Amino acid sequence: AGDAEAGKAKSGMCVACHGADGNSLAPMYPNLAGQHAQYLESAIKAYRDGQRTGGTTAMMTPMAANLSDQDAADLAAYFSQQKLKQK
Amino acid sequence: AGDAEAGKAKSGMCVACHGADGNSLAPMYPNLAGQHAQYLESAIKAYRDGQRTGGTTAMMTPMAANLSDQDAADLAAYFSQQKLKQK
Repeated sequence: AGDAEAGKAKSGMCVACHGADGNSLAPMYPNLAGQHAQYLESAIKAYRDGQRTGGTTAMMTPMAANLSDQDAADLAAYFSQQKLKQK
Repeated sequence: AGDAEAGKAKSGMCVACHGADGNSLAPMYPNLAGQHAQYLESAIKAYRDGQRTGGTTAMMTPMAANLSDQDAADLAAYFSQQKLKQK
């Protein structure tokens, strides 16, 4: 299972687009805050494994390329536990 | 731009997994409530256009196959305006 503290420590390269707390900085980037960890983990792996193309995948694939399964679980745990800021 | 009321009317096939209000029914399915409309629209089109594979894409690609660009925008508008239920 993912370790949210470890995920936070690994989240440095995520925050420029997705925000330090998972509230993204532009509407083309999805919010991660409050999303299910299981879904986030599967999405990270899908980018890493080349299963997503098009759109902003050109950014995400290299970001995810060097993440281990544990990294993916840790990041998913961290962002899923953040609070989505809603209008 | 998307029309949220039209999106609601078109959301029938989404709700079995993503919930009537975009709060999904199982952790393998992403919440849509509170997500940026621009991102949701791009994701729907990516599934429709075969740019995503793996994971639960086997479900999403046929769901999205017959959606027009306007359908995608309408659905994105609707779900983005729903409230995420957070723990």
